[in-house]
Amino acid sequence: MPPSGEDYLITRYFRPLADAPASLGLLDDAAVLSGSADDLVITTDAIVEGVHYLAADPPETIARKALRVNLSDLAAKGSAPAGFLLTLALRTADEAWLAAFASALGDDAATFGCPLLGGDTVSTPGPVMISITAFGRVPRGEMVKRRGAHAGDRIAVTGTIGDAALGLDILRGGRAASAIAGETGKLEFLINRYRVPQPRLAIAAALRGAASAAMDVSDGLAGDLAKLCTVSGVSASVELAKVPLSPAARTVVSAGATTIETLIAGGDDYEVLCTVPDARWASFAQAAAVSGVAMTEIGTITDGTSAPVFLDTAGKAISLSRTSYSHF
Amino acid sequence: MPPSGEDYLITRYFRPLADAPASLGLLDDAAVLSGSADDLVITTDAIVEGVHYLAADPPETIARKALRVNLSDLAAKGSAPAGFLLTLALRTADEAWLAAFASALGDDAATFGCPLLGGDTVSTPGPVMISITAFGRVPRGEMVKRRGAHAGDRIAVTGTIGDAALGLDILRGGRAASAIAGETGKLEFLINRYRVPQPRLAIAAALRGAASAAMDVSDGLAGDLAKLCTVSGVSASVELAKVPLSPAARTVVSAGATTIETLIAGGDDYEVLCTVPDARWASFAQAAAVSGVAMTEIGTITDGTSAPVFLDTAGKAISLSRTSYSHF
Repeated sequence: MPPSGEDYLITRYFRPLADAPASLGLLDDAAVLSGSADDLVITTDAIVEGVHYLAADPPETIARKALRVNLSDLAAKGSAPAGFLLTLALRTADEAWLAAFASALGDDAATFGCPLLGGDTVSTPGPVMISITAFGRVPRGEMVKRRGAHAGDRIAVTGTIGDAALGLDILRGGRAASAIAGETGKLEFLINRYRVPQPRLAIAAALRGAASAAMDVSDGLAGDLAKLCTVSGVSASVELAKVPLSPAARTVVSAGATTIETLIAGGDDYEVLCTVPDARWASFAQAAAVSGVAMTEIGTITDGTSAPVFLDTAGKAISLSRTSYSHF
Repeated sequence: MPPSGEDYLITRYFRPLADAPASLGLLDDAAVLSGSADDLVITTDAIVEGVHYLAADPPETIARKALRVNLSDLAAKGSAPAGFLLTLALRTADEAWLAAFASALGDDAATFGCPLLGGDTVSTPGPVMISITAFGRVPRGEMVKRRGAHAGDRIAVTGTIGDAALGLDILRGGRAASAIAGETGKLEFLINRYRVPQPRLAIAAALRGAASAAMDVSDGLAGDLAKLCTVSGVSASVELAKVPLSPAARTVVSAGATTIETLIAGGDDYEVLCTVPDARWASFAQAAAVSGVAMTEIGTITDGTSAPVFLDTAGKAISLSRTSYSHF
């Protein structure tokens, strides 16, 4: 009997990515991770065509984004990647698309030391959906939680904020595009920030030793900080002028095509937001510098349960009409 | 700030299901399973509206099917459930549908000792898709693999074969419906077999001690046995007359509305197919009897790499035009 279409696709495109013993070569009904004294961190994020990425996005960047949004969670939790599962819902088996998708996914899996362990491939009459579950290891009890921030802790964020929201705006023909129309490098930088997040895995070990709480910023800095504060039972004060912006984002803000308020409510940053007790800040900042991940202090955790406050340069609290992205 | 729609849905409908410490109350970016000497079995199966279930199916049975197709894999691998992740892609947040879905899912999670650990909820313009990743525990090195069958091993299957394919046929207004039109009990039995699989977890421990290979039958007995044989480097001989059929399926076959050849190529059985060395058969059959799971011997593993042979009552090999379901 010839192999079925599904089996052919798996054999042809995905078995080459499944080089870890735990995957059993994708030839079983399940993967098996060996018992370990370390805790297993488990995260899952799905991306849907037309919702989390654009139908016209290249298959290579779609693959990288699908994996990296999960690796970003592993980084924020202080863990090291151990492998992932891939569930693909496809309308058709477009082999050119699949070849490019699988090749880029394999590149990223190798780059980040996160092998394919298993998955499922199903047909759908609807949009393509890519759901990835990623596994990470941390020493027992050391996962960095979202809950745990205390008044007085410093608030810090990796990389730069708002680039991805601007990249999406550009791809949709929004105002950001005209603001930097002549600057191809900045235009491409912002689009790439939307399409290909940078998981901050290099900072994971430092977070474990220092952060009282952490999460990745995926639905907007303002809303995600509010979530961290709510679950920790605290509030926060952030100085808008300290929120790190890329040169490209600064150009768009200067041109009046967006505002910092909009950028801190935009999605798809995939940066790490963390809180660090004062006593551990110096050594943490040093470890961050060694890791090569930019880490910027933006404010302080405060007592209380009110929403985080964002202060302008005059020290006045601004009001936000929208703080984050929600699907429903 | 009011909670976003997504957060509201999770809090309202899914947090009540997340009663295991590993879920962190669904209030973090990740779940965390404590380190364990046991191996972790990981399986993932997605079901898509209109593909794996019908849009008119009740939300309760959709929820149960989504979880149980994964529990069926855990059972076939000889493992005990440890928890699951749920990824829901929804067109709209229909609260009546979600309430019924979550309630039935919670019932099953409690029944099978498999708590919700985490997940993702996304919007989609397409069909509803439910992707579940389930985790099971087995003593180190004891997961029952698909590979491992040897010539001489007995082939056995749990429950009955073909019911679900007939249930789907009935729901689609096919010939099976008229064959048992007067027998409401049988009609409902077959429909229920399609909508609500029975994961054979009670047999998991017995499989660990006895089976040389096992898998769950989801895409048709004939095709799935072929897969097990291919990966084990063996062939098989099955007596069609021994394939266990329910009274309802026998009625449909007797009426000439289907054939046993069709039933062994039908999908959605979610029964366990296993191979057991002769020396371990008696104790395994005894353990199966004690577990309350019907286990029927249907044939023998043979040498060679040709496709499994299915013999009619005259001992003559039949030819199958189709052996399994494939998505592409």
